[in-house]
Amino acid sequence: MENINIVIAGARGRMGREAVQLVQRTENFQLAAVVDHKNDGGRLSDFDGFTGIDVPVYTNMANCFQEIKADILIDLTTPEYGMLHTKTALEYGVRPVVGTTGFSKDNLIELEALCREKELGCIIAPNFAIGAILMMKFAQMAGKYFQDVEIIELHHDQKLDAPSGTAVKTAEMIADVRKTKLQGHPDEKETISGARGAQFEGMHIHSVRLPGLIAHQQVMFGAEGQTLTIRHDSYNRGSFMSGVKLAVDTVLKIDTLVYGLENILE
Amino acid sequence: MENINIVIAGARGRMGREAVQLVQRTENFQLAAVVDHKNDGGRLSDFDGFTGIDVPVYTNMANCFQEIKADILIDLTTPEYGMLHTKTALEYGVRPVVGTTGFSKDNLIELEALCREKELGCIIAPNFAIGAILMMKFAQMAGKYFQDVEIIELHHDQKLDAPSGTAVKTAEMIADVRKTKLQGHPDEKETISGARGAQFEGMHIHSVRLPGLIAHQQVMFGAEGQTLTIRHDSYNRGSFMSGVKLAVDTVLKIDTLVYGLENILE
Amino acid sequence: MENINIVIAGARGRMGREAVQLVQRTENFQLAAVVDHKNDGGRLSDFDGFTGIDVPVYTNMANCFQEIKADILIDLTTPEYGMLHTKTALEYGVRPVVGTTGFSKDNLIELEALCREKELGCIIAPNFAIGAILMMKFAQMAGKYFQDVEIIELHHDQKLDAPSGTAVKTAEMIADVRKTKLQGHPDEKETISGARGAQFEGMHIHSVRLPGLIAHQQVMFGAEGQTLTIRHDSYNRGSFMSGVKLAVDTVLKIDTLVYGLENILE
Amino acid sequence: MENINIVIAGARGRMGREAVQLVQRTENFQLAAVVDHKNDGGRLSDFDGFTGIDVPVYTNMANCFQEIKADILIDLTTPEYGMLHTKTALEYGVRPVVGTTGFSKDNLIELEALCREKELGCIIAPNFAIGAILMMKFAQMAGKYFQDVEIIELHHDQKLDAPSGTAVKTAEMIADVRKTKLQGHPDEKETISGARGAQFEGMHIHSVRLPGLIAHQQVMFGAEGQTLTIRHDSYNRGSFMSGVKLAVDTVLKIDTLVYGLENILE
Repeated sequence: MENINIVIAGARGRMGREAVQLVQRTENFQLAAVVDHKNDGGRLSDFDGFTGIDVPVYTNMANCFQEIKADILIDLTTPEYGMLHTKTALEYGVRPVVGTTGFSKDNLIELEALCREKELGCIIAPNFAIGAILMMKFAQMAGKYFQDVEIIELHHDQKLDAPSGTAVKTAEMIADVRKTKLQGHPDEKETISGARGAQFEGMHIHSVRLPGLIAHQQVMFGAEGQTLTIRHDSYNRGSFMSGVKLAVDTVLKIDTLVYGLENILE
Repeated sequence: MENINIVIAGARGRMGREAVQLVQRTENFQLAAVVDHKNDGGRLSDFDGFTGIDVPVYTNMANCFQEIKADILIDLTTPEYGMLHTKTALEYGVRPVVGTTGFSKDNLIELEALCREKELGCIIAPNFAIGAILMMKFAQMAGKYFQDVEIIELHHDQKLDAPSGTAVKTAEMIADVRKTKLQGHPDEKETISGARGAQFEGMHIHSVRLPGLIAHQQVMFGAEGQTLTIRHDSYNRGSFMSGVKLAVDTVLKIDTLVYGLENILE
Repeated sequence: MENINIVIAGARGRMGREAVQLVQRTENFQLAAVVDHKNDGGRLSDFDGFTGIDVPVYTNMANCFQEIKADILIDLTTPEYGMLHTKTALEYGVRPVVGTTGFSKDNLIELEALCREKELGCIIAPNFAIGAILMMKFAQMAGKYFQDVEIIELHHDQKLDAPSGTAVKTAEMIADVRKTKLQGHPDEKETISGARGAQFEGMHIHSVRLPGLIAHQQVMFGAEGQTLTIRHDSYNRGSFMSGVKLAVDTVLKIDTLVYGLENILE
Repeated sequence: MENINIVIAGARGRMGREAVQLVQRTENFQLAAVVDHKNDGGRLSDFDGFTGIDVPVYTNMANCFQEIKADILIDLTTPEYGMLHTKTALEYGVRPVVGTTGFSKDNLIELEALCREKELGCIIAPNFAIGAILMMKFAQMAGKYFQDVEIIELHHDQKLDAPSGTAVKTAEMIADVRKTKLQGHPDEKETISGARGAQFEGMHIHSVRLPGLIAHQQVMFGAEGQTLTIRHDSYNRGSFMSGVKLAVDTVLKIDTLVYGLENILE
């Protein structure tokens, strides 16, 4: 197995630090350089928390790819840099794996054309947690056969919005395939308002908030005599890394743009 | 172990049928007679579903106790007969285990005096499901140490009221001991109304309704770095029988009135 | 929507009784007759528990189809009759939905040819619980991305075998796609033998047996920072009926043999 | 509310760092000094990770208490120092809250006498996770009423021993009160060895090991028609801090030795 040379942009962010560890401990992954807005010409080991990781730091991505032989760019920066970084990588023949959001439809059309022209794969994914993506995919599949579904999402009590974005997205994905139904008994009534949760096209979503919890979601389907439950528990940011690894392995084998990790899961 | 002679009132009801089975399969329990509003002077085996259970049927409880040597009356009839049956049993020296509701405060005072006079135990319990009662008891105990609690109750979709009576009772029991707190983030907001459930003194209650489900409740406590969950699943009416058996065994050893199964659980 | 005329074989069995109820309550399903080894020429309502369901009883299936216009045969008898009933139905132009096991490879080849000749659909399914089948299907899909998996199956304490057949089948399906791995720490040791459960190709299966439980299975996948859990709870035989209904609806639209409900789920 | 002056020994350990944070963020707790084997005469802020926490460091506990006014010692060092530190604190009129193990029976007798002589409270607890302790306490209470119980403990796959110490301790506590029973069907058989888990006095314990998991335990009780489940999830070391806080608050109000946090929970 040949070594894969990887450049990371955003290595000092929370996701980026996990990505550096992932590259370090994966046998044929090789960290070639990092792109950072500070410390041009220095070494990654100059930064706090990267003792012994002796790779060069560039503030300019183009310069980086001129000097460093890279196969992959892992970009975990912010929406404002995502488009620029992705284009730069493709122009230098480097395949991008991008974890930022904020790409417009026009951006994606432009990148798709660039991928085709350069015959290079590119994967952009707003969510790299394979488990969460499979949960949503399975929920959608089950929604074809079970009309009755309730979603319980559970998070720490510092979360501001209820329901969570993932819960709403899951409900939307189920709604795309589910035969519409207003669930519960037609005469049911709430003796305390809110008991039956948020309603979304006849489905119900419940948001639990407790200190101690991290990020959990349970999708429950019911039919006569049975329930089917799909649950994802996310305990820390490490949960994204199996998705990043899958994206790196996959982007080498494709020559098109893929948006959304769900599209590389079979 | 000596035999315990038991008379059942309400044997043909749903709980009563379970009680007949309980008595039949418990080694030292002996079914002596049943009290029913039909078939005076007949046999229980005359009724549908009691093949081979050859005990006499009385429509008048006093007559029953004049002719039959009984230690225990298990009364699973309706609120309107509960008081009369309980008094009659005590007057004939028979210890009542009563599963009906509807006793007034005055009723209980009167029965307490009668128990003391006759030196007989009597147990009245609106709920015989030991598991459900322990769930509530444990939830209350935990409520002293965890201020943050959410209740999720899950029932079949034919249930009309939300939240369930058990959920509200559990919240009340916790509120009795819990240091008041408005849970969740002070700035949290529902993007779809109802997401955060019903509020009860700062706690949140979520009611899930799905076909297939029976009767389930989960009480979740959270604190830094941990959650503690107490869950009861009730699958069928058989769940009441371990409580009835415990009440029969206990009522023989006491000579006072006990209201509520929680008061005979240590 | 036109009526679908249905004949049921095995109506008095436990599954058969559920199937009769299903047909009765489904709008365009019409019970045309039943095939039973007793009461030829009588009515279904002659049997205990079928009050008011006035359809003819035949002991000979060929006779039944000569006299009764049927679209579908639902066969819920025993392995010894399955093959004969299926062939007879196809020969009379009736589409079979069969819930018995015991078909040999040769049987299936013969039935496949007969389906093609007659241009009739036929669905044979050893398990009609859609939820259980989706659980296995999802578990297999997740097994491609998660190497670490443990199965916990929970049943009532009258069950003799451990692990359950469904747990073993699930493990086999996962093993077909999972990159082999001996799970757990290489130096882990059991201080009480059996703690780590049954081993199946490096996966672990745990069998819980408790009174009260019915039939439940939980498949847990783990990776850095996350777990993904798929759980099916079966509370009663009614759980099979949504699968029977789906099979009836599907068999009308196909003209081949399908073995296994998983093959009609997308 | 008056300030409580606290000295911490073992502040640089994993538990100790959490304890420093706890003291910092609790309104009337005041960190007065730390005892460490290094940096005598220096400041806590000299150590990595304690920026801005400007309290003196002592290597000798007696010196510390001669110079610093302290109400409480929180000792989170190692078994070899536990006894010495506890005695020293009591001799200087400081109430100890101790999280180390390794106290002999003779040690405890000696400390008990010292507490009585000095009229000072002292709390020694091998486990400060209130949730875990309540789980065990509730499991024991339920064990009086449910003979059938299975324990499922779930941990990360770097754990070496199975079952976990907490699972065995829980089983022992239940065994103390439970009427002995060999669970499961008398004729049950394992088709793959180990499926039914580890046996402990007729109860069964199952050890799940998966990457991603942290430390979780579920105790399930079953009886006819119902199950009762008590579950504790520990996500990080912060779970110990509510117990440390409770111990600090309690030790000020007592004048005896208490061993085990369960003995200050009602």
